[in-house]
Amino acid sequence: MKTISGQLQIETKGYSDIIDITSEVEEALKESKLRAGIISIICSGSTGALTTCEYESGLIEDLKRFFEKVIPENEAYHHNERWGDGNGFSHVRASLIGPSLTVPFNEGKLNLGTWQQIIFIDFDNRPRDRKIHLQIMGE
Amino acid sequence: MKTISGQLQIETKGYSDIIDITSEVEEALKESKLRAGIISIICSGSTGALTTCEYESGLIEDLKRFFEKVIPENEAYHHNERWGDGNGFSHVRASLIGPSLTVPFNEGKLNLGTWQQIIFIDFDNRPRDRKIHLQIMGE
Amino acid sequence: MKTISGQLQIETKGYSDIIDITSEVEEALKESKLRAGIISIICSGSTGALTTCEYESGLIEDLKRFFEKVIPENEAYHHNERWGDGNGFSHVRASLIGPSLTVPFNEGKLNLGTWQQIIFIDFDNRPRDRKIHLQIMGE
Repeated sequence: MKTISGQLQIETKGYSDIIDITSEVEEALKESKLRAGIISIICSGSTGALTTCEYESGLIEDLKRFFEKVIPENEAYHHNERWGDGNGFSHVRASLIGPSLTVPFNEGKLNLGTWQQIIFIDFDNRPRDRKIHLQIMGE
Repeated sequence: MKTISGQLQIETKGYSDIIDITSEVEEALKESKLRAGIISIICSGSTGALTTCEYESGLIEDLKRFFEKVIPENEAYHHNERWGDGNGFSHVRASLIGPSLTVPFNEGKLNLGTWQQIIFIDFDNRPRDRKIHLQIMGE
Repeated sequence: MKTISGQLQIETKGYSDIIDITSEVEEALKESKLRAGIISIICSGSTGALTTCEYESGLIEDLKRFFEKVIPENEAYHHNERWGDGNGFSHVRASLIGPSLTVPFNEGKLNLGTWQQIIFIDFDNRPRDRKIHLQIMGE
């Protein structure tokens, strides 16, 4: 059993920018040469989140609309009153979706469906340069 | 330390069908003979999700009502306009809850509460035959 | 590769009490002496949840307000009708956020951002004495 660490560097536009990171994760898995185990992925930062979806432009819009509906950008947030950075909505959205994702793999392949991609969502209210950590554990 | 892989095959009714998979996961853990570690569980497919709840019929209804309230089936979805399969709501709900769950175990038992079950939710808009992957890692 | 288990005991006030457990998790990681791997954290109980946020009082209020907005305490819940314990809202909130969190670490440090803390949220409608299980796996 081995532990192999990786990191992705991602430039985002912020404002619920939804980015498909599946091929980068698959590349890291391939390089690790591990066949069976898990990949634990995390966004270091409290305004980013990870989940999966079918990555197609219609659904990307539907997800953004959902976030704006349940956690609107322009409501009053105590966070904004205190810190003045205007990204209260970003923080609440990120805590809701969660910062991490664990994906098992077998025969060197992620256990995902054909139309299921790993997405990183940058909820912040400005472009960001993000670090995504990968921990690949297995044999 | 070992990695032992398993798979559950589950027939669902779709439409936020909520299925208790705890005993199947416990059975796989027992067969693995591992005593301490983690089980990483994932639904391969972008309209299914995993979380935990107290599995009783009242709460199952409450969860379904919550999903319909925040992500209604019959709203307009860009996904539906593009693909015509009518399951935009399924995708958004699945991305919200998330496709995977990791549960630590000790002394061969899952670290869950007495009234806490592992549930698979099939958000799709038709019956499905689902694969749930289990990765059991530990010693 | 090793598996080292730990447990946190936490007294909460219930009612979406949001508690920063980062330093306790860091302490357990330090004691494990492991350098690279993952920590899998779970709340045993179906009315508690784990995620991350910037732990500051403004945002804590924003999160509580969000939970009350989308899953109000005083709506009708089938769970309450059946069991009479009045915590239907607690269960739905906990299933939404999810009971577990996995955090990778490197060089003995959690891969979290500077303003990103691990939070345990107790959604129950009374004070609770909670067990949080930690599984630290790595080398």
